[in-house]
Amino acid sequence: MDYQTLLDNVAAEVAPLIGTGNVADYIPALAGVDPMSFGMAIADLDGGVHGVGQWRQAFSVQSISKVFSLAMTLSRDGQTLWKSVGREPSGNPFNSLVQLEAENGVPRNPFINAGAIVVTDHLVELAGDASGALLDFLRSETEEDTIGFDADVAASEAAHGDRNASLAHFMRSYGNLRNPVPTVLEHYFRQCSLSMSCEEVALAATFLARHGVLRDGRRLLTRSEAKQINAVMLTCGTYDAAGDFAYRVGLPAKSGVGGGILAVIPQRCTICVWSPGLDVQGNSVAGAAALDVFTTMTGWSIF
Amino acid sequence: MDYQTLLDNVAAEVAPLIGTGNVADYIPALAGVDPMSFGMAIADLDGGVHGVGQWRQAFSVQSISKVFSLAMTLSRDGQTLWKSVGREPSGNPFNSLVQLEAENGVPRNPFINAGAIVVTDHLVELAGDASGALLDFLRSETEEDTIGFDADVAASEAAHGDRNASLAHFMRSYGNLRNPVPTVLEHYFRQCSLSMSCEEVALAATFLARHGVLRDGRRLLTRSEAKQINAVMLTCGTYDAAGDFAYRVGLPAKSGVGGGILAVIPQRCTICVWSPGLDVQGNSVAGAAALDVFTTMTGWSIF
Amino acid sequence: MDYQTLLDNVAAEVAPLIGTGNVADYIPALAGVDPMSFGMAIADLDGGVHGVGQWRQAFSVQSISKVFSLAMTLSRDGQTLWKSVGREPSGNPFNSLVQLEAENGVPRNPFINAGAIVVTDHLVELAGDASGALLDFLRSETEEDTIGFDADVAASEAAHGDRNASLAHFMRSYGNLRNPVPTVLEHYFRQCSLSMSCEEVALAATFLARHGVLRDGRRLLTRSEAKQINAVMLTCGTYDAAGDFAYRVGLPAKSGVGGGILAVIPQRCTICVWSPGLDVQGNSVAGAAALDVFTTMTGWSIF
Amino acid sequence: MDYQTLLDNVAAEVAPLIGTGNVADYIPALAGVDPMSFGMAIADLDGGVHGVGQWRQAFSVQSISKVFSLAMTLSRDGQTLWKSVGREPSGNPFNSLVQLEAENGVPRNPFINAGAIVVTDHLVELAGDASGALLDFLRSETEEDTIGFDADVAASEAAHGDRNASLAHFMRSYGNLRNPVPTVLEHYFRQCSLSMSCEEVALAATFLARHGVLRDGRRLLTRSEAKQINAVMLTCGTYDAAGDFAYRVGLPAKSGVGGGILAVIPQRCTICVWSPGLDVQGNSVAGAAALDVFTTMTGWSIF
Repeated sequence: MDYQTLLDNVAAEVAPLIGTGNVADYIPALAGVDPMSFGMAIADLDGGVHGVGQWRQAFSVQSISKVFSLAMTLSRDGQTLWKSVGREPSGNPFNSLVQLEAENGVPRNPFINAGAIVVTDHLVELAGDASGALLDFLRSETEEDTIGFDADVAASEAAHGDRNASLAHFMRSYGNLRNPVPTVLEHYFRQCSLSMSCEEVALAATFLARHGVLRDGRRLLTRSEAKQINAVMLTCGTYDAAGDFAYRVGLPAKSGVGGGILAVIPQRCTICVWSPGLDVQGNSVAGAAALDVFTTMTGWSIF
Repeated sequence: MDYQTLLDNVAAEVAPLIGTGNVADYIPALAGVDPMSFGMAIADLDGGVHGVGQWRQAFSVQSISKVFSLAMTLSRDGQTLWKSVGREPSGNPFNSLVQLEAENGVPRNPFINAGAIVVTDHLVELAGDASGALLDFLRSETEEDTIGFDADVAASEAAHGDRNASLAHFMRSYGNLRNPVPTVLEHYFRQCSLSMSCEEVALAATFLARHGVLRDGRRLLTRSEAKQINAVMLTCGTYDAAGDFAYRVGLPAKSGVGGGILAVIPQRCTICVWSPGLDVQGNSVAGAAALDVFTTMTGWSIF
Repeated sequence: MDYQTLLDNVAAEVAPLIGTGNVADYIPALAGVDPMSFGMAIADLDGGVHGVGQWRQAFSVQSISKVFSLAMTLSRDGQTLWKSVGREPSGNPFNSLVQLEAENGVPRNPFINAGAIVVTDHLVELAGDASGALLDFLRSETEEDTIGFDADVAASEAAHGDRNASLAHFMRSYGNLRNPVPTVLEHYFRQCSLSMSCEEVALAATFLARHGVLRDGRRLLTRSEAKQINAVMLTCGTYDAAGDFAYRVGLPAKSGVGGGILAVIPQRCTICVWSPGLDVQGNSVAGAAALDVFTTMTGWSIF
Repeated sequence: MDYQTLLDNVAAEVAPLIGTGNVADYIPALAGVDPMSFGMAIADLDGGVHGVGQWRQAFSVQSISKVFSLAMTLSRDGQTLWKSVGREPSGNPFNSLVQLEAENGVPRNPFINAGAIVVTDHLVELAGDASGALLDFLRSETEEDTIGFDADVAASEAAHGDRNASLAHFMRSYGNLRNPVPTVLEHYFRQCSLSMSCEEVALAATFLARHGVLRDGRRLLTRSEAKQINAVMLTCGTYDAAGDFAYRVGLPAKSGVGGGILAVIPQRCTICVWSPGLDVQGNSVAGAAALDVFTTMTGWSIF
C-alpha cells in the first residue's frame, strides 16, 4: 500500500471520531477552531510529503514546538541542558508544581511546561533571540517563509500565563533559571503560538527520522542525540498518557493542545496529524486514533 | 511574683540558649543581626508594659505582621476572607506549593505565606493602601510614630521574592487573587519589613488579650472574632511546629523569621520575645524556650 | 445558669440539626444506629454529672478511646512514645499513608489511625493486655462494671481492617512497630469497639480537667502531661477539621466516627456529646454544633 | 560482527564497572552474592544462545519474573487485567504508596510492586497455582527442568515483606485484590525467588522478540499483545529510571534487584545480562552499561 492509499484508509477509519473530545478553551484564540477539522501528512526521508484532509491548513502547534526547541538547544550545547532538566516521565499533569517542589526545581523532562521553560531559558542563553532562531530553522527546513507566530495566540497565552509564571518563578527561586522570568516567558509563549500545517510540521521534523541529518545533508544532531530525542518523545511526549500511548501506538510522538501530534518512525518517515478535539489528558482523540490505525495497518510500531 | 521578677527569672533561665540556632540568612538584611540579642516584654490589659533585655530595640517582625493584617482585614469584612483562605494547619513548610495545588489555590490558613498573600490581597481591596493602613494602626495602638518599614529589608525581600511570586501567580491562575501580582507583593513585602521592638509588638497586640477591644476602648473585632484569631494562632502560628509549640508552651502565638514571637494570654496579657537564632522550623530557640519557662512558672497555659 | 439549664438550652438549640449528616456506614454494626439519637453530659471536677437526651445510652466511642489509651501509655512511660509518634496536625485524612511515607513511618500524631496503632503497640509492650488494661481503667474511673467491648463491632472492624493492616505493616517495614501486626491490631480494633454512654465518657475523662488527678485523688499524669494531652486534642483531635473546630468551638476535643465528641474545659469540667450524623470530615454535626453553642453561651472557650 | 565477538567486546568494555554499585542487601539471601559476577547471553529467534562470562550461572531473577507473569496473565485474559492496573510510568519509587493512594488503589503499571501483586492476584484467579504455572512455562520454554524457586530467598522475602503486605492490604481496602493477602503474597514472593541463568532468561523471553510466538511455533500472545508488553517494558521496566534507560539504551527492558536485566530487540533477539552491583535506582551498573555499549556497537536501539 502506498502512502496516499494508507492515508486515505486511515482517514476513512477515524472519520467517526472527528469532532469528539473537547477543543482546548483555556485561551479564546484556541477555542474558536472548527472541531471538525482533520488533516494528516507523511514526510519521507527524501523530502516527499503526502497528505489527506486539511493537511495544508495551519493550526496552533503549541507543545509540538518543544521538540524543535529541544533539538536546537542540544545542537548548540549537548550537555549543559541535562543538568537543569531530567529525562523521566513525570507521572503528574503537565503544569503541576508538586514534583518540581519535591525535586528542588529541576523539572522531570523537557516536555512538561516547566521543562520546556528551562529549555527556552537555555536557548535564550545560547541563541539570544530564541524564538527568532526557532522560526529561522523551521522556515529553512520547510522552505516556507510564511511560517510565523500567531500574535493573538501569544498575547492570549501571556494574558492567561499565571501558571507558567508561577512555574518560572518557582524554578528561579531554586536558581534553575538564568534569565529574567519575563524574557523567558516571552519567548516561551511566542514559541507556543507557532502556526504551521501538518505538511510543514512533518517536513521540519524529518531530521529525527534521518538520525539527525537535515534536509540539505548537514548534520544538526549526532546520531545518538537524535535517537535520544526520539526516546524522550516516547517516554514523555504525550503528557500524562505517554505509557498508554506507547502501548497503543508504539511510536515516539509529541502532542500539543492545539490538537496536533507529531510522530517519528526512525529511518522511515515522520507523520503529523491534526484534529482539535482532545481527550482528558490533552491529546487529540482522532489524531491518536489515526496513528493507532496507521501502525496497525503497517506494523511499523517500533516494538 | 510580679511581672518584672518573672521576666528577670525567665531571662536568667534561657540565657544559655541565646546565640544557639541559626540566624535567618535568606536575605542579607536579616543575616547581619547580632545573634546574641534577646529581649522580652509583657503588656498588661491596662497598657502597662514590662521588659527585660533588649525589649526596646527594633527588630524585623516579619511574619508577626500577619496577625495584624489578618485582624485589620477581618475588622473590615469578617466573612469574605474565609472563602479565599482556610483555617487548617498545613502540615507542610510555610512556603510550600504542594497543598495549594491539591486544594485548587486556596491556602490552608492565613499564616502560611500563600495565605498571608491572600489576606494582603483582600486588604488592598478593602483599604487601598494596605501597608499604609497597617502602619497607621500600629502607630495608633502604640502611640509610637517612629514605627516604620525597613526599606532595605523590603527591597531585599523583593529581590529574593521568586518563591512568593510563584505562590501569588499560582493562586491567581486559580482566580484566587483579585489584584495584580506586583501590587499585592509590594504590600506583602513591605509589611514583612516592619521594624518594631518587643514593647511595641506586645502593646499593639493587646486587643487580642482584651477580646477585641482597642487601647482606647473602641472595639476592633467582636469578642468571637478575637477568640478566633487566637485559635488560628494556636493551630497555625508557629509554622510546621504548631502542634509541638502548643504541646510545650500552650499559648496562641505567632513567630517570625526575624526571631520574634508574639504570644497571647487571653484576658491577662500579651508577650513578645525576640532572639534571632532559629530552630529548623524557623522559630526562635531562646524565644520559644522563654515562653515555655514562662508558662511553667506561672501555670498560665490555656490548657 | 446552672449546668442542667445550660444543657436543656443547648439541646433545644441544636434540635434541628439532629438527623443531619451521614451515619458512618463503613461497618454494618455502626450503620444500624438511629440517626435521631442525641445525648450530652457534663461532668464537673467533683464527680457530679448532668445530662440531657440519651446521655445514659451506650454508643460506639471509636476514636475517643484514643485519648484514654494515650493517657495510659504516657502514665506508664512518659518519654519513649514520642520517639515513635509526632505531635503535629497531619493536614491529611485520618487514614492516609502519604505523610507516613514522606516521614519514614513515624505518624504525625497519636490521634490519626497510624499514630493510635503506635500507641497501642507501646501499651501492649507496657501493659501486656492493652485493651484489658484500658477496660479496667474506664470501669474504675466510672465505677461502672458494665462497660465493655462490642464484639460485633470489633469483628466488623477486623473484617474491614485492610486499611489499618496496611498502615501497621507499613510502619513495621520502617521498624516502627515492635509487636506482630495481628497482636497490635487485635487490641486496636477492640479498643475502637468500646461501648460507653456520654455520662461514662465524661466521667472517665475528668482527670484531664483536673490536670492529671484521678477521681480518688491519685495522680495519673503530671500536671504538665495532662496539659499536653489537652494541647494535642486541640490541634489534632477532630481529624482534618482541627483548625476549624478550634476556631468555632475553642476547646480541646476528640471525636469518633460513632458520633461522639469528648471536650475538656481545663479546671472546670468535661463534656461528652453524641449524635451519629457526621459531616464530611467525620465529626458529629449536632455534636459540634452543641459544643459551639455551649461555648458561646458560657464564654468558656480557652481563647 | 557475530554475536560471540560482540559479547566478548562488550564484556571487555564494561569490565572496569563490574563490582561497582551496591549489591542489594535488604534480604540476607541476596547480600551474599559475589559482587564481581558478570554474565551476558543473547538468544536469537531460532533458539540459538550465545554467552559470555557467567552466563550459565543461576541468579535471583527477582522482578524480571514480572514480565513472565504479566505475559501469562494476558495470555489467559487479555482485557480484565487492565481494569485493575494502569500502563503509565509511576514517577515514584517502585514500592511507594503515594500514587496508590491518590489513584484509589489502582497501581500505575504492572512492574512496580503493587502492580505485580495485582497481576499475581489475577493469575491466581486464572491459573490457581500461579507460581507453579509460571514454573511450568519457564521449564517448557527453556527445556530446563532444573529451574526452580530458591526457598531461602522466598522465606527471606516473606520475613521482610511488611512493605509488600502493606501494599496488598491497601489495594484490598479499595477492593482491588480478589484473593486473600497471604495467598497472593505467597505466590508473589515465590515468583520473586526464581533462580535462573542469563541463558535461561534470554531463551524463555524469545516470544517477546517473535511477536508472541513460542519456541514450538504456538502463539502465546497476539502480535499486538507482545508489542504492548515491549512498550510497557520500555516505559516502566527499569524502575524510576525508565526515561533515562530509554535515553541511554533505547530498548524495552526489565531489571531486577538481583542484578539481572532482560532486554528485547523486536524481531531480532533477546538479551539477558547479570551483574549484582546496583545503582541508586536499583538497576545493575555493569548490566545497563553493557546494554548501552551493545546498542552503540550495533545501532540496534529501537529509536
